[in-house]
Amino acid sequence: MTRTTPATAKGEATRAFLLKTAARVFAERGYAGTGLSDLIAASGLTKGAFYFYFPSKSALALAVLHDQQQRWLRRVGERVLAAGGAIEQFRALAPAMLELLATEPEAWSITRLTIELAADPATADAVVKPMAEWVELVADIIRRGQADGDLRPGPDPHAVAVVLVAAFDGLKTLTDVLNPDAEGSEIFARRAAVLLDLVEHGLLGG
Amino acid sequence: MTRTTPATAKGEATRAFLLKTAARVFAERGYAGTGLSDLIAASGLTKGAFYFYFPSKSALALAVLHDQQQRWLRRVGERVLAAGGAIEQFRALAPAMLELLATEPEAWSITRLTIELAADPATADAVVKPMAEWVELVADIIRRGQADGDLRPGPDPHAVAVVLVAAFDGLKTLTDVLNPDAEGSEIFARRAAVLLDLVEHGLLGG
Repeated sequence: MTRTTPATAKGEATRAFLLKTAARVFAERGYAGTGLSDLIAASGLTKGAFYFYFPSKSALALAVLHDQQQRWLRRVGERVLAAGGAIEQFRALAPAMLELLATEPEAWSITRLTIELAADPATADAVVKPMAEWVELVADIIRRGQADGDLRPGPDPHAVAVVLVAAFDGLKTLTDVLNPDAEGSEIFARRAAVLLDLVEHGLLGG
Repeated sequence: MTRTTPATAKGEATRAFLLKTAARVFAERGYAGTGLSDLIAASGLTKGAFYFYFPSKSALALAVLHDQQQRWLRRVGERVLAAGGAIEQFRALAPAMLELLATEPEAWSITRLTIELAADPATADAVVKPMAEWVELVADIIRRGQADGDLRPGPDPHAVAVVLVAAFDGLKTLTDVLNPDAEGSEIFARRAAVLLDLVEHGLLGG
């Protein structure tokens, strides 16, 4: 026991370090542009030690994706669901996402990794699940808002949720293109508020 | 004269063929995952003939982007601006984009190419302009709708336009991830209608 526990803790720390390093390399070079040798070099480990943790580039990329999405889903879910009624929860979505973005600015490159992994049939299935979970988080809020009579009953909750998750991702991507400068994240925050405000009006309006 | 004209016409046809071929290769493998040798092989030209048209991978990628964006902007712009008042023009946006997508289903992979070229400082500037033109097309419609009193004056036209362009792109990307199957384009059309309806409600609502 006294020997395995520290070894496992060290293993966990190494794994976490590898995920963080790989996330940065994928963000810089894209999935297709990254070789397994780049990842090994960035890790500072020997080839053998590296393979002990991840047997392939796609295994590491999927682990990066899975790790970040689960962590983000949990944090945003906890924060949003604590916000009271459905409309308050809906309004809490943007601040929760923006806070996340502020603490891990590089993490959004996960969107690009998602797109690349989705394009490959070998990894596509593993990518769908976390995106579907984001959609469900939002759809649930809208569903409850409609059930409580706070939101108009017309729009399909699942379709609106897909639109909102997609719009948020797309807005981050486009803002990165149009405003790659230091003010980009502030501009993104303003635009995200416009998006949520429009959709809220759209869900309330008769 | 009689000798240069056919030669130029043939040159134009070859250039158009190279752009189309390259668009397909970039769509399949991504920008980073495509080598100049892949592009030359797909073109069926000799290396020398290929270099006569495009001296580098980035020159070809930017030409693909520029060509598609200009063509799409012109087609959507013409169709939308013919639609009468500002609200009718706003409502014509989704059908115009969907028609475009139906005629050139593979062309949306331009979004992925845009993201990759935007990430590279050497090509970033050339990518911003066409995206900014899409935003201006939409912002103009909203601006006129507000000036005519058809849309509520609150929302900033430019910010709403960025949100809408981004949401449309993001929705295509996410639908490709969630629904890579044959029904994907029909599902996208339904979701795009939900997006436009929500935003229209948001722009009309008090």
